Amino acid sequence: MNAPTKIGIGLLGCGNVGSALAQLLLEDSENIARRTGITFELRKVAVRRPSKDRDVSVPAELLTDDASAVVNDPEVDVVVELMGGIEPARGLITRALELKKPVVTANKELMANVGAELSALAQAQGVDLLYEAAVGGGIPLIRPLRESLAGERISRVIGIVNGTTNYILTRMTEDGIGYGAALAEAQGRGYAERDPTADVEGYDAAAKAAILANVAFGASLVSGDVYSEGISDVTQEDIKLAARLGYVVKLLAIVQLGPKDQVGARVHPTMISARHPLASVRLSFNALFVEGDSCGELMFYGKGAGGAPTASAVLGDIIDASHNRSIGSHGRNPLALGGENWPIDEQSSSFYVTIEVDDRPGVLASVASVFGLHHVSIRSMEQSGLKDEARLIFITHRALERDVQSTLHDLRVLPVVRRVGNVMRVLDEDM
Amino acid sequence: MNAPTKIGIGLLGCGNVGSALAQLLLEDSENIARRTGITFELRKVAVRRPSKDRDVSVPAELLTDDASAVVNDPEVDVVVELMGGIEPARGLITRALELKKPVVTANKELMANVGAELSALAQAQGVDLLYEAAVGGGIPLIRPLRESLAGERISRVIGIVNGTTNYILTRMTEDGIGYGAALAEAQGRGYAERDPTADVEGYDAAAKAAILANVAFGASLVSGDVYSEGISDVTQEDIKLAARLGYVVKLLAIVQLGPKDQVGARVHPTMISARHPLASVRLSFNALFVEGDSCGELMFYGKGAGGAPTASAVLGDIIDASHNRSIGSHGRNPLALGGENWPIDEQSSSFYVTIEVDDRPGVLASVASVFGLHHVSIRSMEQSGLKDEARLIFITHRALERDVQSTLHDLRVLPVVRRVGNVMRVLDEDM
Repeated sequence: MNAPTKIGIGLLGCGNVGSALAQLLLEDSENIARRTGITFELRKVAVRRPSKDRDVSVPAELLTDDASAVVNDPEVDVVVELMGGIEPARGLITRALELKKPVVTANKELMANVGAELSALAQAQGVDLLYEAAVGGGIPLIRPLRESLAGERISRVIGIVNGTTNYILTRMTEDGIGYGAALAEAQGRGYAERDPTADVEGYDAAAKAAILANVAFGASLVSGDVYSEGISDVTQEDIKLAARLGYVVKLLAIVQLGPKDQVGARVHPTMISARHPLASVRLSFNALFVEGDSCGELMFYGKGAGGAPTASAVLGDIIDASHNRSIGSHGRNPLALGGENWPIDEQSSSFYVTIEVDDRPGVLASVASVFGLHHVSIRSMEQSGLKDEARLIFITHRALERDVQSTLHDLRVLPVVRRVGNVMRVLDEDM
Repeated sequence: MNAPTKIGIGLLGCGNVGSALAQLLLEDSENIARRTGITFELRKVAVRRPSKDRDVSVPAELLTDDASAVVNDPEVDVVVELMGGIEPARGLITRALELKKPVVTANKELMANVGAELSALAQAQGVDLLYEAAVGGGIPLIRPLRESLAGERISRVIGIVNGTTNYILTRMTEDGIGYGAALAEAQGRGYAERDPTADVEGYDAAAKAAILANVAFGASLVSGDVYSEGISDVTQEDIKLAARLGYVVKLLAIVQLGPKDQVGARVHPTMISARHPLASVRLSFNALFVEGDSCGELMFYGKGAGGAPTASAVLGDIIDASHNRSIGSHGRNPLALGGENWPIDEQSSSFYVTIEVDDRPGVLASVASVFGLHHVSIRSMEQSGLKDEARLIFITHRALERDVQSTLHDLRVLPVVRRVGNVMRVLDEDM
């Protein structure tokens, strides 16, 4: 056994994840050294207000409000960025990489927007920039995608990557409560922010989808390239109808390869078969489902948020970067295949569509003809009476998004149609 | 981008997995090079009978029956062993490592019995010995355990690591057929061998449990250290009773850390809550469930066998070893913490026990007193009539294996007891 390597850690940010990490580094250092041969020393912690009371007793002499000083400190070998947001994180990470210091970050917003630029800099400098914790919290998924599946022809990755919305949908499904009540409960339990927009409208999941597209397919998507639709319009009725048809409603991030090596990334509520492994991912758990030519179907499951699980993923990256640094090396270059963004209009899905119509002869024919006109073929239809009106529930075969949107547009102006109800995509399992 | 690295591959064995790997290396080489920057060339393939017809058209000039020649060939940079069994694989791998050639193997029997010796040699030689495919087929789990969770305090790993038995149990559970019929069906579908002993008696799972113990806890267990019990005694009645109590029966490999850092590994049919993520692992799928102090609960799920998925894992290792070789490095040393074997007698579990007794006053008291005498406390009891006898169904609190075995021994000789029926361990979820 070689003499133990000593690595100085500089921490930027000491919130939920930062505190959990500091605690691990301060209190579990001996165990970590025994398992890895590396002794970590927390050298400096940049926080906004060094005088604030903290849950974890980080020694006062480590705290500073000068983040640049942490990055520049010659005693800091590895920089860990847990501040969140794009600036000043971007500038600080750039500086660290210029100093050839490996960087570990859990910052999804940063990686989903300027990840390509930072990865290119890290590569040019020959140091690691690792971000396992940016997607799926404590679940190891970036490293398996990047390394274990490096040679695999992946066709699609599907993630439940937002715990807040999964919690809300699970409560709505299992206990029959409405969206508002489930959201309030999630807020009460600390799973949702007071302003829940980023979670419930799918923006958080969209940033993660962009990162997954880049890791799995070597794309260079940013958050804004990802089509996203949230769960705030999902009703009890949708969930009950889905259940009757053998489906569960989940907010999925779907990233897939197009016919010309384009990469499409989208986030929306989706009906999936109750027997699909993702259907059993309950409450605030996250999971990533991977489909590949050789590996078949894989799933990675665990806690997608929270201080301790996220700190666990950050620690794994710190160990990796430190190991690489100690042998004068760095991890593999990120995949950069340059696939174009595949716009949602050109992707296809099956759809579930409910339509309320006048209940009289010939109505079904005129509704069905609108689908036919736009080349959307129907897999199944159910009709139920509703006084003098009827409700039609369609599930389509896989069809181009653009064609389905044109169909919906035309249906809305059809005289016999009183209302086009909710529309939801259905996950195809025969990719 | 650097000029592409060329790596010569020597393959030992060309059965199910070997053929799938050869096909990837021969037909998908361009895609792999694009994704990894490494061009793989299949240089030589050792088979028992080079003249045999094969599914994959490996060019005849690559085939040889001289395995040593493959290892010694200076054009072979990385040796891939897919022959199975201990000898001659062990000798060939030893020779390859002595030549400082990285080795990738999918051989669970080898790694579960002489893995420590081979890993030590690889470490001394400064080359990689990788075996992702030896447990869980196509599922990336060795690398995440070794790298992503390197700093994690793992308390327990629980695996469904044998697809044959999981297929049989799934069919028994979902379709109500008996063990014999389910086994015959598994054989018909090619999921079970004509002689199914190694699978159904738990020996295959025990070898994998030993490997998991060594990877997750740095133990040095061999197959023979693992307590194992198969599924051939599991009845429809057990499965139905389990279902009524909210449980599912699975053959689990359970590896856990003892109070004095001992490592216990065991394989047996187990009742787990129907809501546990492992309960939804159906048919021939495998999964590994990991419990750690910081990461919480993780699960890795996928295809545990089959040519293509296993070849996918082997390819991941080949890429890793080649990347390391090209930068003159090798992967991290395997964890070696030297934990003692924790014998099953000293481990504890909850148990489910059915007992048929005479139906008369005082019987329950005398049965219960036997449990009490051995310090086994009862969590729940149900009684049902059966003509002049009664059946008692007990679930115990967690108790020492040794105490439960003494209890069962004494119950069997108790005059009022007609028969002690099936006994099954119940997974504790409150570790």
